[in-house]
Amino acid sequence: MATFGLIEYADAPAEVRAVYDDIMAVRNTDYINNFWKALAHDPAGLKRTWESVKQIMAPGALDPLTKELIYIAVSVTNGCGYCIASHTANARRAGMTPEMFAEMMAVTGMANETNRLASGYQVEVDSRSRV
Amino acid sequence: MATFGLIEYADAPAEVRAVYDDIMAVRNTDYINNFWKALAHDPAGLKRTWESVKQIMAPGALDPLTKELIYIAVSVTNGCGYCIASHTANARRAGMTPEMFAEMMAVTGMANETNRLASGYQVEVDSRSRV
Amino acid sequence: MATFGLIEYADAPAEVRAVYDDIMAVRNTDYINNFWKALAHDPAGLKRTWESVKQIMAPGALDPLTKELIYIAVSVTNGCGYCIASHTANARRAGMTPEMFAEMMAVTGMANETNRLASGYQVEVDSRSRV
Amino acid sequence: MATFGLIEYADAPAEVRAVYDDIMAVRNTDYINNFWKALAHDPAGLKRTWESVKQIMAPGALDPLTKELIYIAVSVTNGCGYCIASHTANARRAGMTPEMFAEMMAVTGMANETNRLASGYQVEVDSRSRV
Amino acid sequence: MATFGLIEYADAPAEVRAVYDDIMAVRNTDYINNFWKALAHDPAGLKRTWESVKQIMAPGALDPLTKELIYIAVSVTNGCGYCIASHTANARRAGMTPEMFAEMMAVTGMANETNRLASGYQVEVDSRSRV
Amino acid sequence: MATFGLIEYADAPAEVRAVYDDIMAVRNTDYINNFWKALAHDPAGLKRTWESVKQIMAPGALDPLTKELIYIAVSVTNGCGYCIASHTANARRAGMTPEMFAEMMAVTGMANETNRLASGYQVEVDSRSRV
Repeated sequence: MATFGLIEYADAPAEVRAVYDDIMAVRNTDYINNFWKALAHDPAGLKRTWESVKQIMAPGALDPLTKELIYIAVSVTNGCGYCIASHTANARRAGMTPEMFAEMMAVTGMANETNRLASGYQVEVDSRSRV
Repeated sequence: MATFGLIEYADAPAEVRAVYDDIMAVRNTDYINNFWKALAHDPAGLKRTWESVKQIMAPGALDPLTKELIYIAVSVTNGCGYCIASHTANARRAGMTPEMFAEMMAVTGMANETNRLASGYQVEVDSRSRV
Repeated sequence: MATFGLIEYADAPAEVRAVYDDIMAVRNTDYINNFWKALAHDPAGLKRTWESVKQIMAPGALDPLTKELIYIAVSVTNGCGYCIASHTANARRAGMTPEMFAEMMAVTGMANETNRLASGYQVEVDSRSRV
Repeated sequence: MATFGLIEYADAPAEVRAVYDDIMAVRNTDYINNFWKALAHDPAGLKRTWESVKQIMAPGALDPLTKELIYIAVSVTNGCGYCIASHTANARRAGMTPEMFAEMMAVTGMANETNRLASGYQVEVDSRSRV
Repeated sequence: MATFGLIEYADAPAEVRAVYDDIMAVRNTDYINNFWKALAHDPAGLKRTWESVKQIMAPGALDPLTKELIYIAVSVTNGCGYCIASHTANARRAGMTPEMFAEMMAVTGMANETNRLASGYQVEVDSRSRV
Repeated sequence: MATFGLIEYADAPAEVRAVYDDIMAVRNTDYINNFWKALAHDPAGLKRTWESVKQIMAPGALDPLTKELIYIAVSVTNGCGYCIASHTANARRAGMTPEMFAEMMAVTGMANETNRLASGYQVEVDSRSRV
């Protein structure tokens, strides 16, 4: 399971344990996702990725649930099964209702459709939308 | 400009004008985007696409600005220049601040990164995220 | 124009000219697309790609116009501006009508939408569709 | 199975049953794919998507089998496992031979290759292909 | 398993056996991957694809391991599970260390992120990078 | 140019100047790419992205030129025009020859093709490649 296996807390070196500890503290859980355990083979990459995710997903101009919805929309567009499953689970824990999921999915599906219509019809950017 | 050219209001058949009229009424504008003018070569497709967009982007469990942010995130992931430009312009008119844009972009970039890390490390879905 | 420039017939080495000659003979034209002139910096790659395209796009169980429509559908899905423009031009020369283009685009747009709905809703393959 | 489960006919509200009935009538089958049963959690989205698919996949300037081939080509390009399986099954029922499948796949593979060669070599659109 | 099943050596026609023999000779193995056995339903496509892969993956200006790393990076970006698994296995047999894998993955993840940042911020190509 | 314009050094706040200074020092240049100037509207994102890029692209188990080749391969697969142009320019300054570029492109094109063949033929992972 996972290219080089999963590194459990008990077997992890100190720098990996420090990241696991921070994940559990920030997320108020005792569960570490397989994603982090797989990435732990690259301790510097694990730390860099977690620090980035922590910074980016924190409340700001957008609330955390909106950020999770955007995360799912991107993961769906890329067809990443692992990411769809884990971020959908995250979002449900954060309060996403079936209605919110359905609307996010409808926008995601429609955007994927109109992205192709715009490209295929070779539509030029409207002058008023130019930067 | 556009594969079969753009169809202006003055040159449009009645069924296309009806869609243009509805777009202008719903969006409270007298401007029709190039996208619709290019699609007007397929009147049935124009009507179907507009009706879907109108239904999907209306306020519901998610507010219209959140929907525009999701639309941009998908368009960015697909690299659709036309769609990025037009939906960013839409979102700014709907009140998107530079801070909101920056946070949406940060989530979109990070999701695109972690989607690949999850796939490349061949991470199995966590049992607690399974449906 | 193009990463290492375009190689014109007059400046091309013999092995590149042989490919250009074959392209012009097979396509019954005296025009060489920029694509081939850019690829000519890699003569082995130019020859391999042309031989593959020639073999694949020849009439077979599917007619050449159907193959061009599939080529456009893929290029639209990938958002390749060059390929959309050149294969749409090819298809029009091969008899594609605006109605055929519109229907191919409608299928392409819808497939891009339902691909995401299927992934996002985490739908399991129907047992009767399993191989 | 599926994010919010599958809604069977016996458990479906009237508006969902109406769509299921129409699917079975139009397709002359008593089988409802998992895709529709998953989407049924969003009855308005179910109806909108089905009406669009029904309209788009009907015979027109292109025959239904050609449309299924284009659908598969797009699904393959996006790597949507569910869609590849279900539309390949559809196409076989509609008369797709192994030779037709192989040729569609060859075009799809080659288009995905040359899309990248065109982008990577930064090839400019031929003046005669410009719209 | 596979759309039209896998064709084993014992059941293969002469032209397919010839390709299988060449694969085993060039790779110094007695194992034929499922990929080739599935593609064998299209003998001309099997031969063309193998000849191309053989030519492209041979040592040249880049060594074979670098080529395998690029192959994985592309497969990861496209989310092709089969290709990620088989090329990661290839690369490990060719000497890829966990550190090399981790660095390739970090570059792949970061490129996927910055590709979207560049598109989303609508950044114009620097004049000094123009071709 | 760029969604919220480009921030030049003279107009940049101290935290942005600090990043610009580090970019110029690490890269031994007095040139700041448009990418960074566009991202500077999000100073925290600018700093995070630059620190990640600096860490990831440094020499390690893979040399910097190999990393640039992987970066181009991913950017080509995603069709990101800005990224293709800037990383191709980077790679040429770092010693990439036309032969190396051609081989990287050939691998990238072939991987994009076989990724689709594997998905479209629904090939199951070889047991010996399973993790």
